[in-house]
Amino acid sequence: MSTPARSERGTHRRLREEVAALHGHLVRYQLVTWTAGNVSARVPGEDLFVIKASGVDYESLDWRGVVVCDLDGNLVDGEHAPSSDTAAHAFVYRSRADVGGQVHTHSPYATAWAARGEPIPCVLTAMADEFGGPIPVGPFAIIGDDSIGRGVVATLQGSRSPAVLMQNHGVFTIGKDARSAVKAAVMTEDVARTVHLSRQHGEPLPIPTDAVDKLYNRYQNVYGQR
Amino acid sequence: MSTPARSERGTHRRLREEVAALHGHLVRYQLVTWTAGNVSARVPGEDLFVIKASGVDYESLDWRGVVVCDLDGNLVDGEHAPSSDTAAHAFVYRSRADVGGQVHTHSPYATAWAARGEPIPCVLTAMADEFGGPIPVGPFAIIGDDSIGRGVVATLQGSRSPAVLMQNHGVFTIGKDARSAVKAAVMTEDVARTVHLSRQHGEPLPIPTDAVDKLYNRYQNVYGQR
Amino acid sequence: MSTPARSERGTHRRLREEVAALHGHLVRYQLVTWTAGNVSARVPGEDLFVIKASGVDYESLDWRGVVVCDLDGNLVDGEHAPSSDTAAHAFVYRSRADVGGQVHTHSPYATAWAARGEPIPCVLTAMADEFGGPIPVGPFAIIGDDSIGRGVVATLQGSRSPAVLMQNHGVFTIGKDARSAVKAAVMTEDVARTVHLSRQHGEPLPIPTDAVDKLYNRYQNVYGQR
Amino acid sequence: MSTPARSERGTHRRLREEVAALHGHLVRYQLVTWTAGNVSARVPGEDLFVIKASGVDYESLDWRGVVVCDLDGNLVDGEHAPSSDTAAHAFVYRSRADVGGQVHTHSPYATAWAARGEPIPCVLTAMADEFGGPIPVGPFAIIGDDSIGRGVVATLQGSRSPAVLMQNHGVFTIGKDARSAVKAAVMTEDVARTVHLSRQHGEPLPIPTDAVDKLYNRYQNVYGQR
Repeated sequence: MSTPARSERGTHRRLREEVAALHGHLVRYQLVTWTAGNVSARVPGEDLFVIKASGVDYESLDWRGVVVCDLDGNLVDGEHAPSSDTAAHAFVYRSRADVGGQVHTHSPYATAWAARGEPIPCVLTAMADEFGGPIPVGPFAIIGDDSIGRGVVATLQGSRSPAVLMQNHGVFTIGKDARSAVKAAVMTEDVARTVHLSRQHGEPLPIPTDAVDKLYNRYQNVYGQR
Repeated sequence: MSTPARSERGTHRRLREEVAALHGHLVRYQLVTWTAGNVSARVPGEDLFVIKASGVDYESLDWRGVVVCDLDGNLVDGEHAPSSDTAAHAFVYRSRADVGGQVHTHSPYATAWAARGEPIPCVLTAMADEFGGPIPVGPFAIIGDDSIGRGVVATLQGSRSPAVLMQNHGVFTIGKDARSAVKAAVMTEDVARTVHLSRQHGEPLPIPTDAVDKLYNRYQNVYGQR
Repeated sequence: MSTPARSERGTHRRLREEVAALHGHLVRYQLVTWTAGNVSARVPGEDLFVIKASGVDYESLDWRGVVVCDLDGNLVDGEHAPSSDTAAHAFVYRSRADVGGQVHTHSPYATAWAARGEPIPCVLTAMADEFGGPIPVGPFAIIGDDSIGRGVVATLQGSRSPAVLMQNHGVFTIGKDARSAVKAAVMTEDVARTVHLSRQHGEPLPIPTDAVDKLYNRYQNVYGQR
Repeated sequence: MSTPARSERGTHRRLREEVAALHGHLVRYQLVTWTAGNVSARVPGEDLFVIKASGVDYESLDWRGVVVCDLDGNLVDGEHAPSSDTAAHAFVYRSRADVGGQVHTHSPYATAWAARGEPIPCVLTAMADEFGGPIPVGPFAIIGDDSIGRGVVATLQGSRSPAVLMQNHGVFTIGKDARSAVKAAVMTEDVARTVHLSRQHGEPLPIPTDAVDKLYNRYQNVYGQR
C-alpha cells in the first residue's frame, strides 16, 4: 500500500483525473448501478495502468478513487484496493499492445443479450459504423483470475467489434484509449436496446455484408474532425 | 406525540439525517413514485428505529420527515405520523436481531415480477454476487398489521437474498444497516429489469449452483474496501 | 382579451402560480412531451377555472402561461389563448361540483392501453389504494367540443377511479384540487407501466375484491398526515 | 477552411447560436447518443444552411460547433468539418424550397421500426395532429452521397408527415424552420414508443380516416398561440 505522503501527491495524477471524469459517461448514460462498472487506461510508455478502485461510489469519485497497477494487476500507487476486475484488465493489456483503455459495465439491454449468450446482429447502420459487424459473446467465466481476460481476448480475436458480451455477466470494451473504450460501451448499450426493441415486433432486416464494410471503413476513416 | 420543543431539538437527529439522505437513492434510481416507499434504520443499542413519515414528499424530506418508533411501531419522537408500513418494519426488527435497516419500494420491474408471484431466477453474475440465488416471493398480505412483516421474515428464512417480492405489492429489503438495505433495493430493480428484458427474446442461460456459491462468497468477503 | 395593464397585475395570480408549478411534476415524471398536456384548477367560490395556455413551453411556464376561463371555456383573463382541451375541462367542472382540479397527459404506457381501448386491471396494491379498482376506458372523441368532457364524466360515473383512459388519445384525471389530479396522473402512468411489464411474461394474479375494498378504504382514510 | 480571424467573428452567428441551442432538445429527450444526430437550418434569403459539425460533443456544443455550408454541402464558414450527413441535408434544401430546417437522429424506438422497415400506423390522436397519418419508411441508403437525401425527398412526396424512417438507419425530419423539425423529431420518438408499447399486448384500434383529417387540420390551424 502507498504511504499517505506518497498518495497525497499521487503519481500519474493527470491520467487518474481523466479516467475518474470518464466514469461520468457511464452514470449519465445509465450503464452502471451503485458501484459496479469501471474504466481503466494504460499509462503511455510504462508497464502500468490506472483503474477504478473496488466498491467506490460514483458520486464521490475523483482521482483518489483511481489507482495505479502494474500489468500483473498489483497495486503500485493509491490508497484503495483496485477493482475486482483488475485481473481481467491486466490480462488484456498484457495480451494486446494496441489496447490503451478498457471499460466494464452491466448495462441492462446488453447484459440481457449476454444472459442468453446471444450475439447482437448487425442490423443498424450505427452498428456497422462502430462495430463493423455483430457484437460477439464470450464464455461464462468466474471473476478473480485470468478467465475473464482470456475470454475477452479470445472472443475479440478476428472481430472488428471493440465490445464483447461476457455470458451471464456483462459488457467489456477496448479502445486505443479510455475515451474510445467508453464510447464503445455507450454505443453497445444503445444498439443492444434498439435491436432488442426492433425484434419485439418482427425480424429486423439484414444489412448486406458489403454495405457493412463500406459503412465501417467510412466511419473509421472519415467521421469526426481530423 | 412529541411536544414542539422536544422535536425542534429532536432525538437521534444524526441517524434521522442519514436516513433522510438515503431516500435520495430511491429517487435517483427511480424506485419510487410520488410519496410511496420508505427507508428505516434500527437505533443501535436501543429498542427503537427511525422511519420515514407517512405521505411525505421526497423533495422536502429532511430529518423532520423521519420519525422515531419503538419496536411495536408506536411513535416515540417526531411531528408526523410514521409510514403506513411501520408495523411491517417493526415486526422484522423484533424477529431478526441481525437486521439494522430496511427498505420498501414499488419499483416497476421488480413489482411486475411480484404481480405474477414469480421469483427472479439467478441468471446474472451480479445477482449471484448480491443475492446468492433467486429473489423469492412472499405471500399476498394486507397492510396495517403484522401480515406483511410475517411474510417478509418467513420468506427470507433459509434464503441468502436480502430482498423479497411481496405478491401484488412490491419489494422489501433488509441489511445490516440502512445503506445495505438501500443497496439491495437498488440492485433488486436492476436485476429484475435485466432478467425481464433477457426473457423477452428467449430463455436466459442458467448459472451452475457451485458458480453461484463461489460468486456469492467472493463478493461478500472480498469486494470493496476493507 | 385582457389589456396589458390588467394582465401585468393578473387576477388569481396565486392560484395561477400554483398551477404553473404543478406542471413541473408532469415534466419530472416524463408524462408530457414538447407542449402537450395541461393542468387546471377551479377557482374556489367563483364560476371560473385556470388552465395552461395552448402550446406553451414547459421550460418557460410561469403564471402568465396559465389563463383564467369561465365555465363555458371563454377566456376571462390572460394574454394567451387557453389550452385546446379547455372545452373538456369546462364540461367536467360544470358537471361535477366535487371536482376542483384536472390533468390531461399522453403519458406513454397509459396511452398504450388507451390505444387498444383496454382498461388497466387492478392487480397491484398501489392501484387498489389510489384507484379502488381498474382504470376505465372512455370513448373515442374528437377534440374541440363537449365530446371529450362528456366521455370523461360518463366513464367516471360509478367508478372509484380518478383517471380515465380516452381511447386512442390519453389520460384525463380529476381530483378535489389540482394537486390531487396531478397525483392521479402520476400514479396512472406508474401502474400502467408496472401492469404492462408484468403481463409481458404471464398473467398477473388478481387481487380479491374485498381486499381491493379494504386497501382503498384504508388508503383514502388513514394514509398520510391528518 | 476559414481563417481564425474570420471564424472568431463568424458569419451567421445568431442562427448558429440558435441551432446549437436547439440540439439541447435532442439530448433532453434522449434522442441522441454520444455525438450522433444533428440539426440544420436554411439561412433565410441565401443559398446557404448551417449544420452541426462532425463528431462534436453535445456538452460543449456552441455556435462554433455549427458551421455554414452552401447548398452543395461545401463548407463556407467555420473551423470544423460539417456533419457526415451534410450531403443529405443539402439535397433536401435544394429539392424543397419550403423546408427551412432538418433534424437527424437514431432515437431508439423510431429506429427499431426503421430496422424492420415498417411504417408507424396512425393510431394516436397526437399522431394525427402532428403527422396527419402514418410515418413512412424510406429506402436503405449508404451515407456520403445523395442517396439518403433522395430517399427522404421521394418518401415524403405525397405524405403529410414531416418525418421519415430511413431503413436500418434512423429518423430524418423536416420543418418550415429548425425548431419545427426538432419538434417533429421529438414527437416521432414519442409516438414510435407509445405505438410500440401498445402493440405488445394486442392490436391498437384504428382511427377513422376522416377523424385523422379533422384532427390534423385543427392542430395545424388552431393549436398554439396565433
